[in-house]
Amino acid sequence: MPSYKAPVDDVLFLLNDVFHIERYGNLPGFADTNPETLEAILSEGAKLCEQVIAPLNRAGDVEGCTRHTDGSVTTPKGFKGAYDQLSEGGWIGLACDTEFGGQGLPQTLTWIMNEFLTASNMAFSMYSGLSQGAYLALRIHGSDAQKKMYLPKIASGEWAATMNLTEPHCGTDLGLLRTKAVPQPDGSYKISGTKIFISGGEHDLTSNIIHLVIARIEGAPEGTKGISLFVVPKILHDADGKLGERNKVSCGSIEEKMGIHGNSTCVMNYDNATGWLVGEPHRGLAAMFTMMNEARLGVGIQGLALSEVAYQNAVAYSKERLQGRSLTGAKFPDKNADPIIVHPDVRRVLLSMRAFNEAARALVIWIALQADTYHRSDDAKAKQTADDLMGLLTPVIKGVLTDQGFANTVQAQQVFGGHGYIAEHGMEQFVRDVRISMIYEGTNGIQALDLVGRKLGRDGGRAMMTFLADAQGFLKAHAADEAMMPYIKPLEAAIGHLQKATMWLMQNGPKQPDNAGAASYDYMHLFGLVALGYMWVQIAKAALASKSKGNGAAMRMDAKLTAGKFFMERMLPETAAHLARIESGSRTVMEMPAEAF
Amino acid sequence: MPSYKAPVDDVLFLLNDVFHIERYGNLPGFADTNPETLEAILSEGAKLCEQVIAPLNRAGDVEGCTRHTDGSVTTPKGFKGAYDQLSEGGWIGLACDTEFGGQGLPQTLTWIMNEFLTASNMAFSMYSGLSQGAYLALRIHGSDAQKKMYLPKIASGEWAATMNLTEPHCGTDLGLLRTKAVPQPDGSYKISGTKIFISGGEHDLTSNIIHLVIARIEGAPEGTKGISLFVVPKILHDADGKLGERNKVSCGSIEEKMGIHGNSTCVMNYDNATGWLVGEPHRGLAAMFTMMNEARLGVGIQGLALSEVAYQNAVAYSKERLQGRSLTGAKFPDKNADPIIVHPDVRRVLLSMRAFNEAARALVIWIALQADTYHRSDDAKAKQTADDLMGLLTPVIKGVLTDQGFANTVQAQQVFGGHGYIAEHGMEQFVRDVRISMIYEGTNGIQALDLVGRKLGRDGGRAMMTFLADAQGFLKAHAADEAMMPYIKPLEAAIGHLQKATMWLMQNGPKQPDNAGAASYDYMHLFGLVALGYMWVQIAKAALASKSKGNGAAMRMDAKLTAGKFFMERMLPETAAHLARIESGSRTVMEMPAEAF
Repeated sequence: MPSYKAPVDDVLFLLNDVFHIERYGNLPGFADTNPETLEAILSEGAKLCEQVIAPLNRAGDVEGCTRHTDGSVTTPKGFKGAYDQLSEGGWIGLACDTEFGGQGLPQTLTWIMNEFLTASNMAFSMYSGLSQGAYLALRIHGSDAQKKMYLPKIASGEWAATMNLTEPHCGTDLGLLRTKAVPQPDGSYKISGTKIFISGGEHDLTSNIIHLVIARIEGAPEGTKGISLFVVPKILHDADGKLGERNKVSCGSIEEKMGIHGNSTCVMNYDNATGWLVGEPHRGLAAMFTMMNEARLGVGIQGLALSEVAYQNAVAYSKERLQGRSLTGAKFPDKNADPIIVHPDVRRVLLSMRAFNEAARALVIWIALQADTYHRSDDAKAKQTADDLMGLLTPVIKGVLTDQGFANTVQAQQVFGGHGYIAEHGMEQFVRDVRISMIYEGTNGIQALDLVGRKLGRDGGRAMMTFLADAQGFLKAHAADEAMMPYIKPLEAAIGHLQKATMWLMQNGPKQPDNAGAASYDYMHLFGLVALGYMWVQIAKAALASKSKGNGAAMRMDAKLTAGKFFMERMLPETAAHLARIESGSRTVMEMPAEAF
Repeated sequence: MPSYKAPVDDVLFLLNDVFHIERYGNLPGFADTNPETLEAILSEGAKLCEQVIAPLNRAGDVEGCTRHTDGSVTTPKGFKGAYDQLSEGGWIGLACDTEFGGQGLPQTLTWIMNEFLTASNMAFSMYSGLSQGAYLALRIHGSDAQKKMYLPKIASGEWAATMNLTEPHCGTDLGLLRTKAVPQPDGSYKISGTKIFISGGEHDLTSNIIHLVIARIEGAPEGTKGISLFVVPKILHDADGKLGERNKVSCGSIEEKMGIHGNSTCVMNYDNATGWLVGEPHRGLAAMFTMMNEARLGVGIQGLALSEVAYQNAVAYSKERLQGRSLTGAKFPDKNADPIIVHPDVRRVLLSMRAFNEAARALVIWIALQADTYHRSDDAKAKQTADDLMGLLTPVIKGVLTDQGFANTVQAQQVFGGHGYIAEHGMEQFVRDVRISMIYEGTNGIQALDLVGRKLGRDGGRAMMTFLADAQGFLKAHAADEAMMPYIKPLEAAIGHLQKATMWLMQNGPKQPDNAGAASYDYMHLFGLVALGYMWVQIAKAALASKSKGNGAAMRMDAKLTAGKFFMERMLPETAAHLARIESGSRTVMEMPAEAF
């Protein structure tokens, strides 16, 4: 069975040494984030993940969820107890407002904890993960009464929540949706329709489930401008939250999926279910996007999380498995064979995972800090910068971290040879589980279009200019630092490729939108590599500083410096290939008639 | 449920127009390979695959194989009937010698048929696939009596065969194996030990199963020089092949795997089982490698096959699924939305699969023709060239076609969005099934080492010089052909990268073997891209010729020319990134101590 150790030390290094969280001390909730408190919180969370939640992962995959004839759903053995510990420990509401029963801590800590939870047990982590998204949507768009009713229940974990968007004939293109809402005299609506792929749509973890559902009010305009958001509780309740009768929403079936078997992915049938409008009529999509944008960051973290746990297990196996000899002569002549970590090609694989994981974690934390700044700062300029960076990098985090996260679980599985293909080692489950992250909350192709079609050009390209100014400012500030050269020089070249690609898009996208579409995926990955590279130069700087201060942990700092060099030597050169593909344009891609495929 | 249409037209184009199979007419078995006969054979095989074998694929995955308490194994419903049709149709022995009951046709046709079979049902195809490998090993290394006994039974499909190499503690490093063989007075051996991951180790398709087993004769030297090959029938038989009592070999359990559930992957227990030596004592590994080298080509074909069927289904879905609008305005304004094939990013994905599939199929057929030449020609020079190319390109075909084949099943699944993650559409099964091809018959990392460490330097690098002379000869011959320029120029650049990388290896590998190890994987992929590019220039030339002759099928030829351009513009540029990684050497990869991982 795979094991997992939450990377608390690495997170603390990023928060304290790389991003200097003390600089955010003026934001609400950040006052107590001194290194000792952070360590105490994260260690406690790590313990819960490692000791309680991770051990349920394999068994949850095997057992899966069971739908009974009455439509009720049982989660795998142990999930309910673990969920109770999670909610009782205050982890679900860690960053929720104190007025709604949360702990008011930085949202950044919730994202970090979500990495730990997901790495431990992705299927399990999704139940509370969706509640956090719903909390945010209701907090921003709900009425005061809705907030008062739902937010404390969600923050405490007493009730769970879901997102209901997809229908059988529409996913990406929500304008096609058919679920309808009929206004009732008492101000409520009757909701009817079928929603599919609803994560945690029905389960036995909480006494109630709050479904956030998009539907079209009778007579509303066609397309995306006629979509409204509703809150539809599984069980109706009075104004005090006391549960009453069952609402007319039920789980029709559980989807048979490739992975995340421990999560009940449901077909949900709404049959004149009672719901209440959230926010303005016909403005539901905007409200749903509030939820979705942060959910996309969460999905990116899933890619990182599975990559991390897969890496850890591949490392352990590569030190244990004796097979063959080092190319430079036996390293353990007293044993029958050397451990496979002596082989350069095995190390190449391990380092490529590690070089991704550390930088991806830094990128997530950096953007999480921007999210906290945006939501909590009073400084208009700081808020705008934070919003720009968050908007720009969210599709990159979602698309690149899940593509590479998936690829890394495949690489980690490969280290196990034939044993990686066998279920009992758990490596193939990581592959199956994380695969969905490339698809849901907008496929990665949609992320790329969001980046190129929406985020890049917004406000005259201000967000990208902000990013580039930040990165280039860093490079300039360290242009004379000899020890930084192995990191600075390659990143300069990669930024050059990003600038060329951006220029090409500006010149060729407007006159022919297919050029932008054909370039989008490569552009997203090119930008992702540059963003990860920018993280690495900052990590390298902090690691060098830590070493020069003689802070101990020199081997750990050296390992970072090596992983960063590996990134620069072996991963960043890919930017040139992305640029070449982008500059090849859309002609070849578009010239073939559909019937010739 | 996914559908499949065997690419008979494409294969015929490759055999007739690209590789001019008539030039091989002097080889035994090739006399009748005129276009009409080829078409008749392949169409018949295609029909069996499409109508009988493909429909069993999904159900076979769901049902899997069942081991009963007596150790017997039942394959999924329908497999036995389909297997009977396959053997009765003479498909298993298509290329086997007529003296042993085969049809004596080119081995190339068997490889082509194996693509069709695998694309239809990979788990099913492995039962007969292993028989073909065993046939070859016994044909080359078996005694006359063994040949006379086993080859007709295997060629007819009456008996099946397996390969038994791996043990729990050893896979790649077979020198560690512990299964032992004790000589008996009658000339037989008693074999004892445990073998794992044995594909088709036990099943109900045939009346007997011939296990080829490697073991160490009591007192044999340690390591790979003390390994012998044995034939161990599941059921003992007399000299006429009449079945007698059960041998002491049994299936201990069926492995729980990520995919290929329709194939019984067994733990096999040998408990003083009776076996007979094949070939010389202590020379078993060489004999097994005969089988394995051709098996590696077969595994490469699995990557291609699953990529092809996944591509076909992604194309169909992208024409059906209505979602969103073209970036350049609605293409089907009368419908609610456009089919997603209007989107450049969807086309990019489809074309990248197609550009791979067509070239990979060409590469397989080219090398299959070399294999036929090697095994059947009387011309020493032609045999040597064929052997060189086959040896050099086998690890490339195995490693690159399975890595890219897997990646393509993932891409095809992505085209389906959320529906790709749901079992009923069958796309996730392709991903799970083909994943094993990157692992078995030597992981792809081992293929890369085989290429760089063994194949490249052999005979002073003669094989690579042969390949380069061939490819460069082609480029030179078409240097003045304007229509060929979009294909010729990029390939020239890529060959330049391959030459630089080869030079770097020659200069840096001998003095520090870790440099070769650290470069091996990128070198394999760099070479793979060049080899596929070399196939594309030849396909392009044949497509242009076919068009100029007005052979009809102009749309199909134009599609080839587009797919080839796509390959040159968007896939071949990757060679530069591979070269950069190779030239970064092994220092960063090796500097970190194992305990720092």
